[in-house]
Amino acid sequence: MDPAVRKKALRMLRYGLCVATSRGDSGPAAGTINWISQSSFTPPQVMVAFKVGTQLQQVVAASRIFIVHIVGKHQKDMALAFFRGAEPDGDKLNGYRVETGETGAPLLVDPPAWFECRVVNEVGGGDHTVFVAEVVSAGVRGDAEPLTLQETGFSYGG
Amino acid sequence: MDPAVRKKALRMLRYGLCVATSRGDSGPAAGTINWISQSSFTPPQVMVAFKVGTQLQQVVAASRIFIVHIVGKHQKDMALAFFRGAEPDGDKLNGYRVETGETGAPLLVDPPAWFECRVVNEVGGGDHTVFVAEVVSAGVRGDAEPLTLQETGFSYGG
Repeated sequence: MDPAVRKKALRMLRYGLCVATSRGDSGPAAGTINWISQSSFTPPQVMVAFKVGTQLQQVVAASRIFIVHIVGKHQKDMALAFFRGAEPDGDKLNGYRVETGETGAPLLVDPPAWFECRVVNEVGGGDHTVFVAEVVSAGVRGDAEPLTLQETGFSYGG
Repeated sequence: MDPAVRKKALRMLRYGLCVATSRGDSGPAAGTINWISQSSFTPPQVMVAFKVGTQLQQVVAASRIFIVHIVGKHQKDMALAFFRGAEPDGDKLNGYRVETGETGAPLLVDPPAWFECRVVNEVGGGDHTVFVAEVVSAGVRGDAEPLTLQETGFSYGG
């Protein structure tokens, strides 16, 4: 298999951009992610892949909870801000105001929608951990169109 | 949790449309899917969720192989044709010409790109089975833009 061909084929998968947060004993964790999809209607579940060794992956592996925030088309700055992990400062995370979600994870107040998750299964073996998680809470604040990975010009895949 | 709010939030996840195929003892299986994402760079892996009880899910659970085809923007008819499962007829599947992929699954010749996968793990517990699979072969035929679920007006999520 030609790695360049594989990269080109895999980069044709489409993705939205999301910010995921969690909270562990050492404090909040966060990151911008795009490897996520729903994986069940009943019960409502999603599957996400978080890079092994990142603070987000390590905290979720222990806490078993996370929140996924949909990033709006007008919020590319927010996606960029969370590429660098969690930087808490008072009631802000990476410069964006947070409250506390039902799961205890930091809930960003600016995104147009979010859902809170509890991990029910995980799969290792790759350089990301696949977490399968039940959606236990959700909210919608507006009708903003979601930002896609492709329209940002970033790539994460291949 | 209000199910209508959960549905609205989960439907803000973005998806591309793909056609997945496999082959078992009883013949070919196929279906249009959108719950798919890459899940590892090294080794290259994807995670997909196939609805429990469908021919595609049952055949992949046994054969452990499948091919994912990217559907181009101009190929909405192909996505529609594979909503109804596999209908083989000579060297065609649902009216579209196929060859045999390296894994033995039917390889559609019209899509702009594809990748062949071998299942390395699966997770049950929801109404879809999550398969984590290694990408063992891939091909690209053109530069067609991928078709997204959202631009078709279909929805599969919530």
